Amino acid sequence: MIYHVISAMQFDRSKLDDLFEEVRDMEGIVRKGRSTLLSGEIMACLFFEPSTRTRFSFESAMHRLGGRVISTDNASQFSSAIKGETLEDTIRVVASYVDVIVIRHNEIGSASRAAAVANVPILNAGDGAGEHPTQALLDIYTIYRELGNVEGITIAMIGDLAYGRTVHSLSYLLANYRDVRILFTGPPETPIPASITDYLTEKGVRFEYEPDLASAAKRADILYQTRVQKERFPSPEQYEKVRGLYLIDQEIVDLMQPHARILHPLPRAGEIAIAVDEDPKAAYFRQAENGVYVRMALLERCLRTN
Amino acid sequence: MIYHVISAMQFDRSKLDDLFEEVRDMEGIVRKGRSTLLSGEIMACLFFEPSTRTRFSFESAMHRLGGRVISTDNASQFSSAIKGETLEDTIRVVASYVDVIVIRHNEIGSASRAAAVANVPILNAGDGAGEHPTQALLDIYTIYRELGNVEGITIAMIGDLAYGRTVHSLSYLLANYRDVRILFTGPPETPIPASITDYLTEKGVRFEYEPDLASAAKRADILYQTRVQKERFPSPEQYEKVRGLYLIDQEIVDLMQPHARILHPLPRAGEIAIAVDEDPKAAYFRQAENGVYVRMALLERCLRTN
Amino acid sequence: MIYHVISAMQFDRSKLDDLFEEVRDMEGIVRKGRSTLLSGEIMACLFFEPSTRTRFSFESAMHRLGGRVISTDNASQFSSAIKGETLEDTIRVVASYVDVIVIRHNEIGSASRAAAVANVPILNAGDGAGEHPTQALLDIYTIYRELGNVEGITIAMIGDLAYGRTVHSLSYLLANYRDVRILFTGPPETPIPASITDYLTEKGVRFEYEPDLASAAKRADILYQTRVQKERFPSPEQYEKVRGLYLIDQEIVDLMQPHARILHPLPRAGEIAIAVDEDPKAAYFRQAENGVYVRMALLERCLRTN
Repeated sequence: MIYHVISAMQFDRSKLDDLFEEVRDMEGIVRKGRSTLLSGEIMACLFFEPSTRTRFSFESAMHRLGGRVISTDNASQFSSAIKGETLEDTIRVVASYVDVIVIRHNEIGSASRAAAVANVPILNAGDGAGEHPTQALLDIYTIYRELGNVEGITIAMIGDLAYGRTVHSLSYLLANYRDVRILFTGPPETPIPASITDYLTEKGVRFEYEPDLASAAKRADILYQTRVQKERFPSPEQYEKVRGLYLIDQEIVDLMQPHARILHPLPRAGEIAIAVDEDPKAAYFRQAENGVYVRMALLERCLRTN
Repeated sequence: MIYHVISAMQFDRSKLDDLFEEVRDMEGIVRKGRSTLLSGEIMACLFFEPSTRTRFSFESAMHRLGGRVISTDNASQFSSAIKGETLEDTIRVVASYVDVIVIRHNEIGSASRAAAVANVPILNAGDGAGEHPTQALLDIYTIYRELGNVEGITIAMIGDLAYGRTVHSLSYLLANYRDVRILFTGPPETPIPASITDYLTEKGVRFEYEPDLASAAKRADILYQTRVQKERFPSPEQYEKVRGLYLIDQEIVDLMQPHARILHPLPRAGEIAIAVDEDPKAAYFRQAENGVYVRMALLERCLRTN
Repeated sequence: MIYHVISAMQFDRSKLDDLFEEVRDMEGIVRKGRSTLLSGEIMACLFFEPSTRTRFSFESAMHRLGGRVISTDNASQFSSAIKGETLEDTIRVVASYVDVIVIRHNEIGSASRAAAVANVPILNAGDGAGEHPTQALLDIYTIYRELGNVEGITIAMIGDLAYGRTVHSLSYLLANYRDVRILFTGPPETPIPASITDYLTEKGVRFEYEPDLASAAKRADILYQTRVQKERFPSPEQYEKVRGLYLIDQEIVDLMQPHARILHPLPRAGEIAIAVDEDPKAAYFRQAENGVYVRMALLERCLRTN
């Protein structure tokens, strides 16, 4: 049975608990400086569109465990010389070269298609508008790591609630925990989709609309900030107005409870003031770092389960 | 004496026999999972045009032996800032950084030019319309590996016989073996060149034109399928007609002898039906995998001969 | 205290002496074939513009010491999806993945900006029209290595004295040594800037204008040749005339003293005749090789100082 990572939905509470424990172990491995756990194993990064940040994080994870990497962010070139090699053929060939494949592709469902034919584990590093499960896992791990727990927290999702893939995936994952309360703190132009709120309702997760950032900042244990995209707004003026309403600056930080934290999937484009970076509440660079530990744990699992 | 791999023609029967034995050893090394045979050695992939498939195969081979890789598929950038750095200067500089260079270049003869100035081994990964010796070697190795022997076989070369570089190189290599019979099974629009048939005649290799795929399938031990290129035909209709005539589907597979095998250099564009993939006669994905073992054996030889 | 390498100016005479000793050690390590000195460490090559030569040299250096590498020469892609991620944010994220960052960027001062926020060492691999300290260090190391000393030498800087960044950096470094004499041997269209000559005057370095290449060749211990760029001249005819005046061919080599050497930062575009390459006085390919040893020493220092 091959252990693929295709969707954040494949992780229930008990799998998340197990994973978090392994991620903590990985932090320890990196602190000690070297590991040969995956020595002799080769990972292919098969990126059909560039995403240097995600690729670097996966490659770092593999190297931290002593493994090797072969990499392209121009994987469409595999079939470009001809018209028509299928993704399935590409995957079968690459799977005969390596021990695990990290795939990023612009089409929803591509990671599942890859897993269907591969005889090595597939890790989904983003399939278009579909899933990006390792991002969702590092988000929830960061909450756990910063607060010590996910149960019972109040989290404000801020900014682009309509198109923000990370907001949606994180909402699904939060439904695994008891007594979570979600505040949706975004402009009416980009509301949270009904598919998400229906799911939360079904799972008994409490949520409410809290358009006021200051109120959210006072109440929440986690502010999950995201980037609002200019092209979602009818005019530049409306975009600028919204940006101002949802900017996290020192004034907002001062309203937060002492233990509360700010997360952001990064990159940011001004929606958190630079001055906030040095505040202990700013957890977003630690969050990026956690991505390496989470991917280490997943790689170790994929390659040791077989 | 530096051991370069420039042309398939440098391998006579006894060198092929030796190589095949080493390739088998390499399969064993990969099954066992790790090797430090080339630990401390660095390979440069110097690709003047992208060929991710070939690059990945070489890089995997080097990693499987514990070596290191530095890589570019944009090597023309070496001299692009200025007009005029010669290939020879680029090679001399890179040779001072690494222990072996894999070169892919769009000009015939470029690998030989590189070998003339390099003080490290050069492996030709394709020089334009010239040679691609490691592909030819993995093709012949796959025949040996699947059938247990190359002597006495009947092989049908199918599809594009005029422009298919792999068909030509494989024909040259087959002339090293006794009692081989080649069936040329392709459309009259893309006939096998006289240079090849003259060589086969001189070497005493029997060949015949067998335009009917069904007859070839019944007779051959190996069906070597290739892609027919649309641009070789006067009209799309003629192209489609030819495609249909040379399609390997389950019906064709059922005509083949039980021990017979289908090879394809890949990528394919529909000339073998997907349904055939799971048939044990379908050897083309194993063929791709063999590419790693063949390149491992060649790297080991290049770096251990010096 | 993090050890960054931002500018050649940070190396005074005593630091250069120390560095050279370490570089010699590195040559020994490469001759012996393998090292695990930096095993477990990861270097990121963060190139905002491609420079395959420099990237390969750094990557080879890291691998020679047993370290790992993750790499992009398209780092601007980090922020391209959005308008506006700052260099500082990119650096902070990458610094959380790796142990040392090599940065190449088109803007002056970018390496300093990176060092200001990074909690890992930054190595400047060229910041636009600013500095490229490792090139300057390998140039001065090559003089030391070829002649046994830098004190007391006469060096002719040939070709593009106005825009040649390497000429300027080397001039600054030479001011650390006693009794150096510099001959500026270039066309009047591209004179050495006053900022350089002012610095040399202040430091007591003797220099003179010696427009005649033959005279310079007779007098100098080092001919430091550079490429003259066509676009610096009002007409193609003037460019061709200048090229001819500053061409190092066998005739010029025969005028040189037996111990004298020719250096060139490479790539060349015809300003040294190919026929000269085999002459022991031609040190430019050894100079490229020295780049690996210099970068090994700097990496070792950055990663062992912390």
